[in-house]
Amino acid sequence: MMNNEGKGLYRSSLSLLTDFYELTMAYGYWKLGIKDRPAVFSFFFRRRPFEGTYAIAAGLDSIIDFIERFRFDSSDLAYLESLKTDRNKPLFEPAFLEYLSSFSFSCDIDAMEEGTPVFPYEPMVRVQGPILEAQLLEGPLLNIMNFQTLIATKASRICAAAEGDEVVEFGLRRAQGIDGALSGSRAAYIGGCNSTSNVLAGKHFGIPVKGTHAHSWIMAFKEEEEAFDSYAAIMPHNCMYLIDTFDTIEGGKKAIQVAKKWEKKGYKILGVRLDSGDLAELSITVREMLDKAGFQDAKIMASNELDERIIRDLKKQGAKINIWGVGTHLITGKDQPALDGVYKLTAIEDEAGEWMYKLKISEQIVKTTNPGIIQVRRYSDDQGRYIGDMMYDTLLGIPKSIHLIDPIDPTKKKNMSPQMNFKDLLIPIFRKGKKVYNSPLLTKIRQNTLSELNLFDPTIRRFLNPKSYFVGLEKSLYDLKESLINEIKNKNVS
Amino acid sequence: MMNNEGKGLYRSSLSLLTDFYELTMAYGYWKLGIKDRPAVFSFFFRRRPFEGTYAIAAGLDSIIDFIERFRFDSSDLAYLESLKTDRNKPLFEPAFLEYLSSFSFSCDIDAMEEGTPVFPYEPMVRVQGPILEAQLLEGPLLNIMNFQTLIATKASRICAAAEGDEVVEFGLRRAQGIDGALSGSRAAYIGGCNSTSNVLAGKHFGIPVKGTHAHSWIMAFKEEEEAFDSYAAIMPHNCMYLIDTFDTIEGGKKAIQVAKKWEKKGYKILGVRLDSGDLAELSITVREMLDKAGFQDAKIMASNELDERIIRDLKKQGAKINIWGVGTHLITGKDQPALDGVYKLTAIEDEAGEWMYKLKISEQIVKTTNPGIIQVRRYSDDQGRYIGDMMYDTLLGIPKSIHLIDPIDPTKKKNMSPQMNFKDLLIPIFRKGKKVYNSPLLTKIRQNTLSELNLFDPTIRRFLNPKSYFVGLEKSLYDLKESLINEIKNKNVS
Repeated sequence: MMNNEGKGLYRSSLSLLTDFYELTMAYGYWKLGIKDRPAVFSFFFRRRPFEGTYAIAAGLDSIIDFIERFRFDSSDLAYLESLKTDRNKPLFEPAFLEYLSSFSFSCDIDAMEEGTPVFPYEPMVRVQGPILEAQLLEGPLLNIMNFQTLIATKASRICAAAEGDEVVEFGLRRAQGIDGALSGSRAAYIGGCNSTSNVLAGKHFGIPVKGTHAHSWIMAFKEEEEAFDSYAAIMPHNCMYLIDTFDTIEGGKKAIQVAKKWEKKGYKILGVRLDSGDLAELSITVREMLDKAGFQDAKIMASNELDERIIRDLKKQGAKINIWGVGTHLITGKDQPALDGVYKLTAIEDEAGEWMYKLKISEQIVKTTNPGIIQVRRYSDDQGRYIGDMMYDTLLGIPKSIHLIDPIDPTKKKNMSPQMNFKDLLIPIFRKGKKVYNSPLLTKIRQNTLSELNLFDPTIRRFLNPKSYFVGLEKSLYDLKESLINEIKNKNVS
Repeated sequence: MMNNEGKGLYRSSLSLLTDFYELTMAYGYWKLGIKDRPAVFSFFFRRRPFEGTYAIAAGLDSIIDFIERFRFDSSDLAYLESLKTDRNKPLFEPAFLEYLSSFSFSCDIDAMEEGTPVFPYEPMVRVQGPILEAQLLEGPLLNIMNFQTLIATKASRICAAAEGDEVVEFGLRRAQGIDGALSGSRAAYIGGCNSTSNVLAGKHFGIPVKGTHAHSWIMAFKEEEEAFDSYAAIMPHNCMYLIDTFDTIEGGKKAIQVAKKWEKKGYKILGVRLDSGDLAELSITVREMLDKAGFQDAKIMASNELDERIIRDLKKQGAKINIWGVGTHLITGKDQPALDGVYKLTAIEDEAGEWMYKLKISEQIVKTTNPGIIQVRRYSDDQGRYIGDMMYDTLLGIPKSIHLIDPIDPTKKKNMSPQMNFKDLLIPIFRKGKKVYNSPLLTKIRQNTLSELNLFDPTIRRFLNPKSYFVGLEKSLYDLKESLINEIKNKNVS
């Protein structure tokens, strides 16, 4: 199996995969002569996805791929040259296009590794470097990270509901486009899925592929039994019969008859699949039928608009389902099809080379951003269990006594001792535009997701009213933010 | 501007963009010697998207692109060769891979043109040809058509709410992956949007691109006024100021001061953009401010989690908004992020070369499919207004007296006179694998969407409780379907 992580899937340059205003702003920075002014941007989300507590970071590998090919080719430049103002003048000066033709990305990037559990407001990616370059990355970074993180998170929830049962990602036909299916499969695997039906994802990412057969296979034959038997004749090792084309129980009886015939030839049925009807009741009945026929090892797979809540309910009802095929809800994050991740300027150097802290204030405190060059430190207790995260400014540093304050509800505080175990979650990915990081193998990323999640209190994985995990601003950063907010508000009052 | 319709965006073969079971079934048909058995599949959806009545067909151009490059390259074959059964034997025989290496698509395809309003159960794409080939198309066809049709439909609803105002698609950062943004932009344009923020969509599809500037532009300067003034210095023709970085009204005052300065130099402000707060109230106040300052022509653009319902409500409240920037809700179809389109076998030839009608029955009548080789005929009255659609079987033909029966509620009937005007909606796209159709220019497709929609009664475009449009089965097809259902049910009873 290959594991080229999707590199080179796109033929053409993707450098224009950005919002138009990134380019007009880039033009502005260039024209004002401030294109190389050092700036810092953070990518983070605000709203807890799916009303849970955490998200699973995913998409970094695609970002790396994008940046490694981040240049403007002749077709990009020809297009930009064709853009006109409403007075039919060229929008961009030739010298700017000349600059873009030799563009090369030179920022530093620090990011959380894929598979890291992450909480609201924590920077998942931090970009530091010339403002023009950092600004241009906004569009593609948001596009890629928002989607893949969303799907890894949804998969994590679904796999939690399945309690260790096999979960197959079945989303291709309902995914939002080709990349929705492909990078969605990869994200679902990072979140914990065991396999996918998407053969292209199998080819590109080495994810195990899995499938049964369609109703059309049954319908292509005159009799259901003949269809099952023909399938066994072709792939006697690989028989997982879809039994609901006409009537699930009748289909189950026929599948068992065919399975008995092939058992005599030395082949065991893998199982049956249910795709409609009352999955709890039908799975219990079909389980009895299989057991009575001596097929205790045969698995029952179920599909049909499943999500984490339905899987949990089916389990509570005693459904005898071993394998869950999850499509639409997983691959689109159906109940919340977009993560609300944003990319915000948090610091910029002034003319004298001094860092200026930046924040965007808002009527709502939850929408006010955190300033500085922020790192996230995750503390753990002696058993290795995580007890809280600290966002701190790497310029201010960390004082001896560590006080944390919840940025949304400042009445929530926590102190950490300098002796505690911790790790800093943002690690170097690019330095001056050169990659300094090698992505782990995808199977390793998936294992990390599962083992990291296990280090949090199980209450944070609850579907309904999960316990929140403590994430605070280090006090000197909190104080700095407060004074910046007051400064801005006073300025607007005056 | 180029208009290469996205061709060649993907470097690698996409032929494995399919569910694993399509390939195992293909292997089965091949091994049983029935791979060339003529079969017919229909693509259609069941559930009215977004609780409206209609959908806007989109995605055909991507399907054409896929089919024109539908072959298995050496990396595809190497991957398939690597797949093993659980006994560690090769899953596919070498001769099958040999066959795939010379695979060439030879089916006929008939489809509705992009931009066609379409209703539940109506085939949008019909594939007829060797069962192996038609089956393999299931995965990519569903992936592409479901998504693009969904987004074109959502865009159509949003543009209806905007009542002719300009609608800019702003979805890139929240789209589900790269293709979600790119083919989503194209679908949104087909549905009626005027422009996009996505520069890559501008480059590939010739869609007009549009944008303002980000909060980060303001924050990169010491003062908001300086930021506006600097922007004007760079692009005096192109000033649409985002005024809510700190305080919308204060920002508006500063924008007006800067606009007055540049007006003296001969440049007019295009407008201002609101991105937070109470858009109704703020837009009314800012409109007054602009008018008082003599900027009656300046536009007010609004964005922030807009959808068709919010736009309609804002209009009812008298909001003074001229341009609507719509992102997340449009590009993900947020309230229903997947169309439920399916691809079903409807007929297959038997050994003697006789067509056998096929349907998948279900406990729910709404999930039972329609058999045959179905065409959709759209009737119009003397004023050219559409009055009803007929699904008929091209094998049975159309009798002299045309009786239609609603397949879900057979008490609903309608007769059509043979003298009425009509058009058949499925037109030839491929014949024996050769393309016989040229996609219209994208701007033409968009115009068709708008003009076709205008030929339906406006009540079908209502957001809440829209009137349903009559779609019936031609009576002889209806009767045939009934007898097939009874045949299957009797068989399962006996």
